[in-house]
Amino acid sequence: MTPRTPASERLLALVAARGPTCLGFDPRIDQLPDDVFVGGSRPSVGAPADAARAFERFFEGCLDAVGDAAAAVKLQAAFFEQYLEEGFAAFVRCCRTARERGYFVVADVKRGDISTTAEAYAEGYFGPVGGAAPVADAVTVNPYLGADGLEPFLTAAERTGSMVFVLVKTSNPSSKELQDLETPGGARISDRVAAWVEREAARTAAGGRYGAAAAVVGATHPAELAHFREAMPHAWMLLPGYGAQGAGARDVVGAFDAEGGGALVTASRSLTYPWGKGRPPADWRRAVADAARVMRADIATARGAR
Amino acid sequence: MTPRTPASERLLALVAARGPTCLGFDPRIDQLPDDVFVGGSRPSVGAPADAARAFERFFEGCLDAVGDAAAAVKLQAAFFEQYLEEGFAAFVRCCRTARERGYFVVADVKRGDISTTAEAYAEGYFGPVGGAAPVADAVTVNPYLGADGLEPFLTAAERTGSMVFVLVKTSNPSSKELQDLETPGGARISDRVAAWVEREAARTAAGGRYGAAAAVVGATHPAELAHFREAMPHAWMLLPGYGAQGAGARDVVGAFDAEGGGALVTASRSLTYPWGKGRPPADWRRAVADAARVMRADIATARGAR
Repeated sequence: MTPRTPASERLLALVAARGPTCLGFDPRIDQLPDDVFVGGSRPSVGAPADAARAFERFFEGCLDAVGDAAAAVKLQAAFFEQYLEEGFAAFVRCCRTARERGYFVVADVKRGDISTTAEAYAEGYFGPVGGAAPVADAVTVNPYLGADGLEPFLTAAERTGSMVFVLVKTSNPSSKELQDLETPGGARISDRVAAWVEREAARTAAGGRYGAAAAVVGATHPAELAHFREAMPHAWMLLPGYGAQGAGARDVVGAFDAEGGGALVTASRSLTYPWGKGRPPADWRRAVADAARVMRADIATARGAR
Repeated sequence: MTPRTPASERLLALVAARGPTCLGFDPRIDQLPDDVFVGGSRPSVGAPADAARAFERFFEGCLDAVGDAAAAVKLQAAFFEQYLEEGFAAFVRCCRTARERGYFVVADVKRGDISTTAEAYAEGYFGPVGGAAPVADAVTVNPYLGADGLEPFLTAAERTGSMVFVLVKTSNPSSKELQDLETPGGARISDRVAAWVEREAARTAAGGRYGAAAAVVGATHPAELAHFREAMPHAWMLLPGYGAQGAGARDVVGAFDAEGGGALVTASRSLTYPWGKGRPPADWRRAVADAARVMRADIATARGAR
């Protein structure tokens, strides 16, 4: 097996070519356009196979619309897992579809467990030794269990040319409850996690600019982005919270390196439901395409104006 | 829909009748007995459907063997999810099988996400409004995202008569890296999480002894168990780490209330692989049955000797 190009390098090339937009996919059954349902009728709560099928059709429509206006796709596992086995199977198929179409795929699973248990999760998403292609280029993981819970993911990522985004500072309001707590010496919990990410990112960068360890930092904390950029010079940052959660293009500029790399900005509702809570327009694909192009342009303008 | 009896009450009755043993199910393909494989041949790495089928057969054999020597079953999602959609489907089927057989079922998924995303996970495991029976009586959740990530699970648990075990202090060595860090005022991170659990457990106990919010505290930290028992008088505690991870019967006595309730002791390897790393014996069901009975008796003896 030829070693794959490290994920950090693939992502750098994609972001250089397409900009830093990441299409966040958080499908909710009651917000989908009619034409993604087979026969045009919405499934009831009790029809998970129909819901899962509609998610896939909507996802493919979004990819068609977005094209190369996004470098990456982040799929939220929860909305699929809500429909249990049917949903999970659709999640895996959507991840694979996006990889085949050339996107950098982040499986937003926020898994976290220890030793052999974490290895099992990592094998699922990154592929077993000598096995098939990974489901995803990267996963999100939760650091609460400590290094025991992170290392198996990172080891598997190195082996398969994948990447691990560790939750450092999440985009939600109550992220402050644990993540902002000060510890002896003054570092906050999120700073401690960031220090682990940077150490492992530097170690795995192997001459490249970025490593296999990476970080999730909410775009809703603009003052933090420059802080964490400086604290983690070798770590890619994934920034959720753009758009519907309130962050805009000027808020995220601090997360990039001088060449425009190092940060992936993810937007979900504002890209996949740009029509808001109203009824989706008949030409919803155009609305999605326009939203993705506007987001890319807005970020480019904000970076240029810095 | 008639409201279901709260999970805390069902669990109290089960533990009173059967003792506090929880069968931990962490299946690894290379440790399974030959006779759970169809045709007796082990699948290669690339045959997830065969692996998933063998997990189910092994699980059913373990339930047959354990019988009423255990009150609960904790299924580790990672080992199933390693086999992606085939594995996940088997996980859901195993959870349902155990509930049908009268066990209290903990889906050890350690999920954690925010707002509507957490709601989606909770709907998957506890069932949608007015929908089918839950997959599990309880799930494990990760507190790193703060209350935003916990409340949707708890709301769904209250609605469906289920329970949420929040990771407070995990059984692994590096749990200390984050969970033991002191915060201003002296409380450790794990104490802060425990305070949230106790507040919500007391609120949801509604006249009963225990509430819908509960805690995971590793049995590998015996000095902590009495501390957390005192700190969370309304919270069930799930104690992993018994057996192969090193904790014994005398280590866990501090976790129980005076009537022997309040704690569920989970053992995985020592119950499902009591033969260790060697080859499983032909009468492996008897070995599993014996291990479960010995564990129950050991805990009863240790509690009596206190």
